[in-house]
Amino acid sequence: MVAPPPTRALPAAILNVGDELLAGDVINTNAAFFGRRARELGFSVLEARIVRDRVEEIVASISDLSRLVRVCWVSGGLGPTSDDLTTEAFARAAGVPLVRDEGALTRLEEKFRRFRRPMAEANKKQADFPHGARLLANPIGTAEGFALSIGACRFFVMPGVPRELELMMREQVEPELRADFPFAPVLRRIYRVIGRGESSVAEALAPLWRSLPQRSAGLGAAFIHYRATNPEVQIIVEATPSDTGELASEDELGSLDTEIERLLHPALFGIGSASLAARVLAALQRAGLRVCTAESCTGGGIGQRLATVPGASQSFLGGIIAYDDAVKMRQLGVPGPMLAQHGAVSESVARAMAEGARAATGADLAVAVTGIAGPTGGSLEKPVGTVHVAVSDAEGTVHERLLLRGDRGTVQQSTEQWALKLLWDRLHARGLAAIEEAHAPSPS
Amino acid sequence: MVAPPPTRALPAAILNVGDELLAGDVINTNAAFFGRRARELGFSVLEARIVRDRVEEIVASISDLSRLVRVCWVSGGLGPTSDDLTTEAFARAAGVPLVRDEGALTRLEEKFRRFRRPMAEANKKQADFPHGARLLANPIGTAEGFALSIGACRFFVMPGVPRELELMMREQVEPELRADFPFAPVLRRIYRVIGRGESSVAEALAPLWRSLPQRSAGLGAAFIHYRATNPEVQIIVEATPSDTGELASEDELGSLDTEIERLLHPALFGIGSASLAARVLAALQRAGLRVCTAESCTGGGIGQRLATVPGASQSFLGGIIAYDDAVKMRQLGVPGPMLAQHGAVSESVARAMAEGARAATGADLAVAVTGIAGPTGGSLEKPVGTVHVAVSDAEGTVHERLLLRGDRGTVQQSTEQWALKLLWDRLHARGLAAIEEAHAPSPS
Repeated sequence: MVAPPPTRALPAAILNVGDELLAGDVINTNAAFFGRRARELGFSVLEARIVRDRVEEIVASISDLSRLVRVCWVSGGLGPTSDDLTTEAFARAAGVPLVRDEGALTRLEEKFRRFRRPMAEANKKQADFPHGARLLANPIGTAEGFALSIGACRFFVMPGVPRELELMMREQVEPELRADFPFAPVLRRIYRVIGRGESSVAEALAPLWRSLPQRSAGLGAAFIHYRATNPEVQIIVEATPSDTGELASEDELGSLDTEIERLLHPALFGIGSASLAARVLAALQRAGLRVCTAESCTGGGIGQRLATVPGASQSFLGGIIAYDDAVKMRQLGVPGPMLAQHGAVSESVARAMAEGARAATGADLAVAVTGIAGPTGGSLEKPVGTVHVAVSDAEGTVHERLLLRGDRGTVQQSTEQWALKLLWDRLHARGLAAIEEAHAPSPS
Repeated sequence: MVAPPPTRALPAAILNVGDELLAGDVINTNAAFFGRRARELGFSVLEARIVRDRVEEIVASISDLSRLVRVCWVSGGLGPTSDDLTTEAFARAAGVPLVRDEGALTRLEEKFRRFRRPMAEANKKQADFPHGARLLANPIGTAEGFALSIGACRFFVMPGVPRELELMMREQVEPELRADFPFAPVLRRIYRVIGRGESSVAEALAPLWRSLPQRSAGLGAAFIHYRATNPEVQIIVEATPSDTGELASEDELGSLDTEIERLLHPALFGIGSASLAARVLAALQRAGLRVCTAESCTGGGIGQRLATVPGASQSFLGGIIAYDDAVKMRQLGVPGPMLAQHGAVSESVARAMAEGARAATGADLAVAVTGIAGPTGGSLEKPVGTVHVAVSDAEGTVHERLLLRGDRGTVQQSTEQWALKLLWDRLHARGLAAIEEAHAPSPS
């Protein structure tokens, strides 16, 4: 690996240990968590690596990364079982013995008493650490972590369980790093779009990007990238330094908003990390309105996305999962002859579902979806991916027909996102939602 | 990196390119996909690596990995924008020029005509490939991939969009690898548990593991590991070869089932990759029964999990998302005085929700959940994580009170899994579900 490009950010890396991550059994969300936190702290992550539960292989990567970066976050392999080998690997890589920490052993025994579980003999190895390591407390799990410097690199070794690792990172690792490496975090602005493809977005914005060097040296040096997660496209503008060290300020990045909003209307729905569901709920709450759902092909996924947002109960009433036509008729009042004539996947049924859900629950707005998620059920006239979405409120009902691509799960997830987008569009058309910067409530 | 341990599997690696993966904007599901496919193909993945969109850094990792493994799957950085640099990096790493492929250019223009989108000038670079590369067709996207050998390593370079990459892998890369590397896939058996912690499971199984060397040399050499994804724990037994080359057979692995079932009863619910939702639906379908849901704190997540399973419509009717108490009363008939007296998060309300959902939809079974997902709403008597689950059928209603740990999302996801587990337990108690090996319908 070569030297990093010029930046004020210190080079860092992520190392995740575990066969289960390489076998694809588990999706590695810890790497994404470390990546987000690294960015907030002002580090530049050069590499993230997953290795197997084999001592020699872990040692080899520790050695590689200790030469490449200044800080490395490590997760996994601190458990009590025989395939938990990370601690041993660090002792070997540092050339120090493993030492039992009596304090850690006492805390471990205390935790088992508190959880009212018998302590297995194997758990005792969780009180062994490389000589010279500084321990990281784990108030919510048995595996304590540790910090250890090898060469010029400071390693922070944490358990693989996401909530344990996240707490340890936030409460112990980050305060230390903020104190020792007081870098300015890398500023970035994320614009979010549903309804236009990545290259169409890139082409629409190209003239704007070309104009940036004339605006300021910092803006001219900004790093722009795109991220397509069907159906959403994100445009990320990141303040990287120019050759002479100029950085775009937060105000300069924000000065792009109006033009980007104009160029990407009506697909642009927001700026920043807050989810579309959170934006819809915030707009509803400000307007004093409540929403309900009527879901067929998504089976509850739209409601689930809304319920994920803390405080959803203020604006989300609930809804009807009308997966079977009998539920569409009984709970939503969709007329049987309409189902027979047009089929369950049709504009008229989507409209009737939305209107029926509003009537049944008394909500101010309802969003309804009915579609063919596949893999079977498609026809020439209505192929897999055909989805009808309707939004109903006191002023009427709007409808859109979508033709989505992908497998069953992709069609379902795209439908959920599109349903929330059409709800957002409806609120925007009524002057109740605006494109604004908003971030997820928790920094994770 | 050191030489791999003795195994018949050929060493392989995964390389994902993209700042967005390191920034934590996107969770890297492609690595998990490649890992699963590699295992099926009989390769042993030694390492998975994510690097940034910087030519020199991509080149350095290509060079590292070409010395370490024989096959490497690569994703990302094949798009039309200025941060798409993977193709250029491969040309440099191989020491060959980039060459425009006229056939690829024609196909690209044709795709844009077919999608009725104007082709941006920038897209033309998607027709450039390293000299000597073999192209991999992309029937569903603009970015074609390529295969290129560097040293002793064969690289397969694919776009980052999951569905494009997955199709390319299955239809073009895998047939080639199966033909050229006809290894026996690594056999493994996964036992799945909800209701016991990882170390408790490990301790219960320890005597069994100790007995394996007496059963056969292959079983004695099996690699056992655990994976805890709250609330589920998985036990993975993998046929790795002994020092003298013996491997456990599929029958030998399967011979452990009865004992593991006895040792882990009643927490064990199945064997293999099929989801709990798929197992519940399969049991319902065999029994000719239909289920509905009544969800408060999960907002539709249980229904969503059921709807994810292809063919769910045969046994899943739908349900009521009773997030607000008004919906609990209107749609589920929960008495207002019961809500006032016991609170929405109570045994009696959970029971009434399940019974009300059955009555409303006519389903044979109903599962209901009501709980406090947090972060607010908890009290001394009912802390955050308090959840009541009820399952109702013609023979009565059963109930369980859970005290779940974690943040809002974790409590919601655990609740969904527990609800499905209690539904499965109910079917099991009635003799309608059995612990069996079952796999996810699609190999992805």
